[in-house]
Amino acid sequence: MVLRHLAPVLQDGIAVIVAAKGIERVTGLFLHQVVAEILPASRPLILSGPGFAQDVIKGLPTALTLAATTLDEAGRWSQDLSGPSFRIYASDDIVGVEAGGALKNVLAIACGIADGRGLGDSARAALTTRGFAEMVRLGRALGARRETLTGLSGLGDLLLTCSSHQSRNYRFGLAIGEGAAPASACAAVEGVVEGMTTTAIAWQLSRERNIRAPIIGAVHAIIDAGAEPGKEIARLLRRPVRPEHEDEEN
Amino acid sequence: MVLRHLAPVLQDGIAVIVAAKGIERVTGLFLHQVVAEILPASRPLILSGPGFAQDVIKGLPTALTLAATTLDEAGRWSQDLSGPSFRIYASDDIVGVEAGGALKNVLAIACGIADGRGLGDSARAALTTRGFAEMVRLGRALGARRETLTGLSGLGDLLLTCSSHQSRNYRFGLAIGEGAAPASACAAVEGVVEGMTTTAIAWQLSRERNIRAPIIGAVHAIIDAGAEPGKEIARLLRRPVRPEHEDEEN
Repeated sequence: MVLRHLAPVLQDGIAVIVAAKGIERVTGLFLHQVVAEILPASRPLILSGPGFAQDVIKGLPTALTLAATTLDEAGRWSQDLSGPSFRIYASDDIVGVEAGGALKNVLAIACGIADGRGLGDSARAALTTRGFAEMVRLGRALGARRETLTGLSGLGDLLLTCSSHQSRNYRFGLAIGEGAAPASACAAVEGVVEGMTTTAIAWQLSRERNIRAPIIGAVHAIIDAGAEPGKEIARLLRRPVRPEHEDEEN
Repeated sequence: MVLRHLAPVLQDGIAVIVAAKGIERVTGLFLHQVVAEILPASRPLILSGPGFAQDVIKGLPTALTLAATTLDEAGRWSQDLSGPSFRIYASDDIVGVEAGGALKNVLAIACGIADGRGLGDSARAALTTRGFAEMVRLGRALGARRETLTGLSGLGDLLLTCSSHQSRNYRFGLAIGEGAAPASACAAVEGVVEGMTTTAIAWQLSRERNIRAPIIGAVHAIIDAGAEPGKEIARLLRRPVRPEHEDEEN
């Protein structure tokens, strides 16, 4: 990992702002934990939220979340990095910001698959809503606060990623929905598809913690176990008709 | 009101399923309360949620919420009305389902305005997320349950309506964002723009109950008080940089 090369040159206590998203596949560690392990002298911060690089470059309004161990530190960096159209809001819920950012990529793949199969706007809205409930359940089990998951870096990034062709995770799902095999869908999307590697570990974590996450499970079955996308998505959308919030803690 | 003509012919205790959305402008009453007043012999149910009529007609998968006074009654109707692709989930939170359905229309106008001004996907995602927080705050003050607002009829319908040209409320906002006056924007959108009449009363209710709702306030200023859309939206997107969830109950 390239980060390791930084270890000898970093001053003690220097801030390292992580802009990647995911959960380490083998260990289940969040990125701030990976950074703390590899660069023990650093103080990791997490920048996450609904902002496509292209929008930022064009100077369009963007609002992101920056998380640090203390609100004071997050606030200082937010002030320093914000501009008139690039706004950063401070948080001290590092796990919450990381959980939302990682899990929304998995759900974006699901929405891409549904769109690739031409299921329509209404189906995608239902899928995103049920996906958000999974993000909240699993995120909270991992230690995230509810308000963080409901904020910019959770819900905000989820709904941006689940509906935009600018998202690589969404485009990856779209190609699968249109019939491509996961490997060729991945090759067709230029750049890293972060949700691909997050899916397996997210599914594993939800099983270990006994969290109901049928959408994450369906994505895992499709991209990691060769399940047929049409069948998996149809199954999700035809859950038995029952009270909407039965057995949910919400 | 045409409903009044039904009063003499309705059998006692007959179910009336309301598919409209809104809050009565002068009284602040929800539609189930209006129906109960005009048709006292009826039992009003509310059908709401993310489903465009066109998607339903095409047989695409749709998931809606049906609310009644008891889960038992909602459940029976949900079973009877559901089909393989048209799924209805039962709820006994009538106020919650109505609050979400009414308020999302106001927020869809805001998103339309932002898109009409070309502010980009990232800005719309931030606006929808902050708008959802307003829906939750005001909805809860009006008696809605959190899980209903986070479900299909609240969040689900919000994100469908805020991002789709199929929504009249969104198209109304879009025309305003592109420079049309509210009256001509309304004329250009064929059909009823439910959010237009809901905006003023939603803003009034939020002021009466001391609920922070800057997005609803901005839409009200633009469509009811002639405020300049560019200025209002810019003000929303340039809130001071501060902790994301400061003073929120969330």
